[in-house]
Amino acid sequence: MVKEYEDDSLTLHTDAYQINMTETYWHDNMHNKKAVFELYFRNLPFNNGYGVFAGLERIIEFIREFRFTKSDIDYLRDAMGYEEEFLEYLSSIKFTGKIRSMREGELVFGNEPILQVESTLAEAQLIETALLNIVNYQTLIATKASRIKQVIGNEKVLEFGTRRAQEMDAAIWGTRAAFIAGFDSTSNVRAGKKFGIPVSGTHAHSMIQVYKSDYVAMKKYAESCVRRKNKVFIPLVDTYDVLRSGVPAAIRVAKEFEGKVNFLGVRLDGGDMAYLSKKTRELLDDAGFQATQIVASSDLDEETILSLKAQGAKIDVWGIGTKLITAFDQPALGAVYKIVAIEDENGVMVDTIKISSNPEKVTTPGLKKLYRIINTQNGKSEGDYITLHNEKPEEEDSLKMFHPTHTFISKVVTDFEARDLHTDIFVEGKLVYENPDIFAIQQFVSENLKLLWEEYQRTLNPEEYPVDLSQRCWDNKMRIIQEVKAKVKSGKGM
Amino acid sequence: MVKEYEDDSLTLHTDAYQINMTETYWHDNMHNKKAVFELYFRNLPFNNGYGVFAGLERIIEFIREFRFTKSDIDYLRDAMGYEEEFLEYLSSIKFTGKIRSMREGELVFGNEPILQVESTLAEAQLIETALLNIVNYQTLIATKASRIKQVIGNEKVLEFGTRRAQEMDAAIWGTRAAFIAGFDSTSNVRAGKKFGIPVSGTHAHSMIQVYKSDYVAMKKYAESCVRRKNKVFIPLVDTYDVLRSGVPAAIRVAKEFEGKVNFLGVRLDGGDMAYLSKKTRELLDDAGFQATQIVASSDLDEETILSLKAQGAKIDVWGIGTKLITAFDQPALGAVYKIVAIEDENGVMVDTIKISSNPEKVTTPGLKKLYRIINTQNGKSEGDYITLHNEKPEEEDSLKMFHPTHTFISKVVTDFEARDLHTDIFVEGKLVYENPDIFAIQQFVSENLKLLWEEYQRTLNPEEYPVDLSQRCWDNKMRIIQEVKAKVKSGKGM
Repeated sequence: MVKEYEDDSLTLHTDAYQINMTETYWHDNMHNKKAVFELYFRNLPFNNGYGVFAGLERIIEFIREFRFTKSDIDYLRDAMGYEEEFLEYLSSIKFTGKIRSMREGELVFGNEPILQVESTLAEAQLIETALLNIVNYQTLIATKASRIKQVIGNEKVLEFGTRRAQEMDAAIWGTRAAFIAGFDSTSNVRAGKKFGIPVSGTHAHSMIQVYKSDYVAMKKYAESCVRRKNKVFIPLVDTYDVLRSGVPAAIRVAKEFEGKVNFLGVRLDGGDMAYLSKKTRELLDDAGFQATQIVASSDLDEETILSLKAQGAKIDVWGIGTKLITAFDQPALGAVYKIVAIEDENGVMVDTIKISSNPEKVTTPGLKKLYRIINTQNGKSEGDYITLHNEKPEEEDSLKMFHPTHTFISKVVTDFEARDLHTDIFVEGKLVYENPDIFAIQQFVSENLKLLWEEYQRTLNPEEYPVDLSQRCWDNKMRIIQEVKAKVKSGKGM
Repeated sequence: MVKEYEDDSLTLHTDAYQINMTETYWHDNMHNKKAVFELYFRNLPFNNGYGVFAGLERIIEFIREFRFTKSDIDYLRDAMGYEEEFLEYLSSIKFTGKIRSMREGELVFGNEPILQVESTLAEAQLIETALLNIVNYQTLIATKASRIKQVIGNEKVLEFGTRRAQEMDAAIWGTRAAFIAGFDSTSNVRAGKKFGIPVSGTHAHSMIQVYKSDYVAMKKYAESCVRRKNKVFIPLVDTYDVLRSGVPAAIRVAKEFEGKVNFLGVRLDGGDMAYLSKKTRELLDDAGFQATQIVASSDLDEETILSLKAQGAKIDVWGIGTKLITAFDQPALGAVYKIVAIEDENGVMVDTIKISSNPEKVTTPGLKKLYRIINTQNGKSEGDYITLHNEKPEEEDSLKMFHPTHTFISKVVTDFEARDLHTDIFVEGKLVYENPDIFAIQQFVSENLKLLWEEYQRTLNPEEYPVDLSQRCWDNKMRIIQEVKAKVKSGKGM
């Protein structure tokens, strides 16, 4: 059976090795050394041209409540055998450092720091797993939702995925991420209650089956719609036979309740959507219901939507479930959290690196800043520009931007604004940032997209958006790589 | 910002249409009619030959706490506009019916009822979404984990996926599902605390980077291992260079700490696993550490594990993350929840059906029983056998089993035991079942697998396991299909 604790916390939502390392640092009196970690992913999901950052809201909540409770400590003692003195130290931990982050809804690309943690080594390490878990999922879904929104355009799109989501948290945080990226509503009532997302829903096939008749069921449903404030009547028409039973019954009921219900639409949930939607449109039009919309759902994603549109399907509102809420074609984002600087014995911050035989896994050392370089002539972004923390590109007249791998690909930008993409979220452990409401974040995403050329926004084969290192940042990385290689080669106790 | 409620509940973790339908039923005084719903999936995930049912523990928790709280009701009134009388009714609802279900760890196949709900129409409808959300994810992961366990055999396998899981619930319930299916431990400490799963973990690359030296970092780590009860020392060897730095440093430290730490293994987390594991094995063996194991992790799944084994990789312990915890190659299971019978105006239960132009979406009417037919000669299963609820195959001398679509495929079974796969979980709203602990469930899975011929267990192209309908169940379905078709054709107000 599951053990329930009165003082349950999410602080143990971490990998065991984080606590092991903290123990080593504590024994070695390294736990309070200042460290800098950066959170980023290497490759954009779905071969998309951009990502949409989501997860900050949940991170703020997690950091504020980050504290080992009594039952956490008891578990670490009794089941995992940590010694008492170390546990006493853990009991005293809370987050005391700084977190700088992109705002939720910011567009994000590969290899750029989404979020930076500057704190004690112990704190930074203990919060890693939860931060990755949150950002990896929510950013993945916001990005998937944005792709779907790209192909849908201005039509309405509803999130329907709860029953297929990967457990409950995914259902609610996923639908929030989708809303941020431009969805209009969710079917999940708790997500409405918790986040203020508009909630929508009609009825299921089971209701038709209960009355064993499309007509009778829809009539009963209309009777209850009459008593609702909005009077919305959107029957589901594909329980028995769409064209011979469902749509005719919907029309018959709508006529009987003319003026009493608002016959906004009919819903199709399967079958040949292209054919059925066109035929349904004809039936509705012939009956005088030209304004009644067709809502479609059935394993839709950006690809099937594009195909339905190409076939001239008469769909006005799109319900998206499984393919969105699980990010079906790529259900994980590979964000990592890497140490880039650590305080040495003299209190000086020293840059660190992780080398790998896989070049893309080599980290970029040092605390950095991230700028979006906006061309002031046309208002479009020239790319992102990563500098060491003490550079000031906003004060330069011109910037040389070059590809961090294929360095011969370069350009010089002159009329530009360098926009710092990071904001202080926590300073000395205190929350100093107020996350906007979800409507403002949704608006923020759509404004951010205006900065991108269309070539970066298309869902198929987008251009690669430049994410460049400053010359100093690049030189620093190359110098440290050479140092490590020399040390490894010399065999001097690496 | 997120709204927090003191009386937060999971009852609103449902699709809005469930509440809309309940309102219609309540208006029509149908809400207390008895109904039967069955939960099942149509197709096994990953083309696997069997599924492993998981999710019952969480369902029990959900049903026990199923109650609309004051803040739930306030939200339904204020944001969704339901009328007061209906809200009063909702406030009074709790689950009063019966739930029969497979036990957790039972093997499950397509189109067989995993779980049955017999209750009032309103209650059955209001719990649907959460039940599907839970079963879809947990059963998916248990099945994926079982596939991985099939190729790993008796070697150890650890779950490492939290950082890539689809939010927090997925991380902990997913690792529980993996444990049930045969995994040995998890890295998630909270899952250990909550479910009693053994927890394991070593250290990360960042620890090596902090000390800027494999040797120094491992030595510090060994010092803290000395103070732990189990003295386990498993350093990660691929931060700078596996063969020239990581493994030599590990060996040097292990020799310095001989007798003081337990040098159980080294961990490889990337690169060419086949090559590196063989070379690492040589280095360890040459240094006299023949018993020290090699732990490997890096986007592994059943396919890459098979390939590594075929290449003769020297891996003893497998760490599995992303590919398991997200069920990467098929991240959703399509379980549905369908009404199969409803009480009519005279209090008689009447079977119901949903017809579809897609034959596999046609439901099988009526409350049913599900048997596993065990051949008493060889102890192996002949297949599963679905009957109407009042049949008694256990009292028959012989059973005719035939394919429900290709009916000419048939066999007659004589020496058999018919094992009822369902157990009462809730009766009249009361929990009457005690879920075993996770170790017993894990044992139950491995015993269930012994009933299956190997041909159903292989991960690639398994044979199709028979899931057959009894003659009466099949006849009942065909009769009802014909009735509905006649009604639709006659156009009499379907």
